[in-house]
Amino acid sequence: MSESARARARAHQDQLTKPPGSLGRLEAIAAQLAAIQGRVAVEVHAPRLCLFAADHGVTRSRGVSPYPRTVTGQMVANILAGGAAVNALSRAVQVELELIDAGVDADAPAAFEGAALSYVHAPIARGTRDFLDAPAMTASERAAALELGEAAAARAAQAGSTLVALGELGIGNTTSAAAITAALTGRPPREVVGPGTGLDAEGLARKVAVVEAALARHELARDAPLASDDADAAVRVLERVGGLELAALVGLCLGAARRGLAVVVDGFITAAAAAVAATIEPALLGYLFAAHRSAEPGHRALLERLGLRPLLELDMRLGEGTGALVAIPLIRAAAAAQREMATFAEAAVDDRGAVHDG
Amino acid sequence: MSESARARARAHQDQLTKPPGSLGRLEAIAAQLAAIQGRVAVEVHAPRLCLFAADHGVTRSRGVSPYPRTVTGQMVANILAGGAAVNALSRAVQVELELIDAGVDADAPAAFEGAALSYVHAPIARGTRDFLDAPAMTASERAAALELGEAAAARAAQAGSTLVALGELGIGNTTSAAAITAALTGRPPREVVGPGTGLDAEGLARKVAVVEAALARHELARDAPLASDDADAAVRVLERVGGLELAALVGLCLGAARRGLAVVVDGFITAAAAAVAATIEPALLGYLFAAHRSAEPGHRALLERLGLRPLLELDMRLGEGTGALVAIPLIRAAAAAQREMATFAEAAVDDRGAVHDG
Repeated sequence: MSESARARARAHQDQLTKPPGSLGRLEAIAAQLAAIQGRVAVEVHAPRLCLFAADHGVTRSRGVSPYPRTVTGQMVANILAGGAAVNALSRAVQVELELIDAGVDADAPAAFEGAALSYVHAPIARGTRDFLDAPAMTASERAAALELGEAAAARAAQAGSTLVALGELGIGNTTSAAAITAALTGRPPREVVGPGTGLDAEGLARKVAVVEAALARHELARDAPLASDDADAAVRVLERVGGLELAALVGLCLGAARRGLAVVVDGFITAAAAAVAATIEPALLGYLFAAHRSAEPGHRALLERLGLRPLLELDMRLGEGTGALVAIPLIRAAAAAQREMATFAEAAVDDRGAVHDG
Repeated sequence: MSESARARARAHQDQLTKPPGSLGRLEAIAAQLAAIQGRVAVEVHAPRLCLFAADHGVTRSRGVSPYPRTVTGQMVANILAGGAAVNALSRAVQVELELIDAGVDADAPAAFEGAALSYVHAPIARGTRDFLDAPAMTASERAAALELGEAAAARAAQAGSTLVALGELGIGNTTSAAAITAALTGRPPREVVGPGTGLDAEGLARKVAVVEAALARHELARDAPLASDDADAAVRVLERVGGLELAALVGLCLGAARRGLAVVVDGFITAAAAAVAATIEPALLGYLFAAHRSAEPGHRALLERLGLRPLLELDMRLGEGTGALVAIPLIRAAAAAQREMATFAEAAVDDRGAVHDG
């Protein structure tokens, strides 16, 4: 991070042909990009959504989602065919889409054609273990998932991206994210468990009980937040109650920040991954943008821990990175204003308080 | 408006491969577009920002803006040269820009080149009269300004646009918009007058006094809202304390809705124009989208009168249509999701409650 570039950006903004501060939060966005990129003339080049998919052991019999486990693999196929929300939205906002199978419990889809996306089939396992019975992943699976995310960051940087957005897909992953949230923030599960894709009250109570049992099983129940830099504890939480897509997103966050890329957090699940990553490496915080506040209650607790104010409040709760996608035009616009606008001097526009006849 | 298309859109949304309602406000946007366009497969084609510029008589000596009156013409030249915020943002979000001189107190700029925009030089006068001394415009000037906006709607429709955004530029026009707001809503001037481009407390008090005097001068002071369909009174308010760019925007709103185009309202000033237009023709309301809530206090009162909930809250207060521009990608994304996503049946994805082994 370059605090000097941030200060230069702020000074430059006050010379541009607009009342000072009148672009509101767009000016803060552009100043943060300046700090990330180490220059005033920031740009959002080739933004890319990295969408990790995986299955979750807890879905095998626990009734934590109204959708069957099969939907993860079916949605991967739907995305490859171009029919999911993430396809429509990534086309609409012109963001590159990379779909990475980090551990879906389905055979590799047949060769696909048509959809404008990259596809990486690199499952670490056919989903996690049920974290009520065992750690969700082994230490080596966790390391492999982190590395998968790290490799996605490397590909994005190699392709010239200056910004990556976080996306996820996996039936059952709000349960995993809620367990992570409770373990990181110290909040009781009933406060951070939400309806996910649409659980009723009975399902919600079952999901709360599952999260409570998982925290107890792995001795992760807390009544205070985890220290903001307790990397070992964060890794343990990830391994015990996380998901393969969540671990890959942690690796993506860390790898992106290390390469100087901005990171756009989507909703609840990606915020859980970002919160784990920021506990491993607190310097990550300066690279993060929160796209929106989702309807999931745990998201608010994570945004507080991360100190992030979301750009949008659209009551979205779809995942797949869809909230991040619709925030990217705002970041692109903020960068364009800072990079392309003329100054008062360049445009020969009178600044405040200039005195004229007439 | 087609309520049948809105209902069909809602039913279609629940068949798409996502949890019901999970696209949040994007689904409401798409349903409203369906009602406007009379079809489920909505699209945002060739969106266009119509940016009207004009000067205001009240700036001649009243100290209602920290910027001199000369800035309106200088900013027109800046926009023609491509250096203003509206240029950078319209490029970033890929929206066509049409700049219309409705009454700037400056000579026509020299031939311009470079900036990707259309320019219409059609000043009705070199600014309005000072509305402390006389009606801001004559009845024939008001009619010509409405016609200028109507013609912009016709050009947009002719060019295939399905959506127009409202933009304005004119030193002094927050004073005019505040007077309109007080006259329409019945709120006292002190509640709807704001700092505009950056007045200090002394300037703000002066501006409140100017608005109070203008309302008294034209017998527009009220302690109750104007009836929601009192067209004659709304036209009188516009003529007495409005601006040429404001009157043109009223004409644009009416002309766009009549042609079935969606209308994106920017900030305070364009909301004042939309509120006048909706009082002239209440059916306009269904065509309006409020892009953002600006920092100007009168904006909130207008949004309440219009019954609109803004899409964004980014503390922007620049005008030029910049807030409308950054909302357009959301509307475009909403349309794309509804038009392009696959249904559960098409994609062979299991819907909620499907029962599977494993």
